[in-house]
Amino acid sequence: AGPVAAAMRELRCSCLQTTQGVQPQMISNLQVFAIGPQCSEVEVVASLKNGTEVCLDPQAPFLKKVIQKILDGENKDN
Amino acid sequence: AGPVAAAMRELRCSCLQTTQGVQPQMISNLQVFAIGPQCSEVEVVASLKNGTEVCLDPQAPFLKKVIQKILDGENKDN
Repeated sequence: AGPVAAAMRELRCSCLQTTQGVQPQMISNLQVFAIGPQCSEVEVVASLKNGTEVCLDPQAPFLKKVIQKILDGENKDN
Repeated sequence: AGPVAAAMRELRCSCLQTTQGVQPQMISNLQVFAIGPQCSEVEVVASLKNGTEVCLDPQAPFLKKVIQKILDGENKDN
């Protein structure tokens, strides 16, 4: 069986504005949407542990660090 | 309004095995799942433009390059 995840995504851009300064340990899931028919911009959507979602700037320097921390499993709460 | 994306994800791990050698231009959406109550491993799920999903190794060196290409908008088909 393949991955369970299946993003429900409409055929339009998702992000109206981006948020800065999100703490890596607040993020449960990060989605990176490539440029495609739905949107002419790269979009990064972070799902937070409090249930909300925020958009992040794909070119923000802190984003690389956030991604690396998540990949390394270093963004736990404790 | 917030982002449209809302991953439908069950409370278990998604990835049984990982795939190597995915071409960045094949990826429409990349999801990075942090360690959490649903899974004790970091998981990376790539949605491909052919409609399938594959899991990638969070520690694979090529993954950083893939993510950077997507973030830079350099993974277009043409």
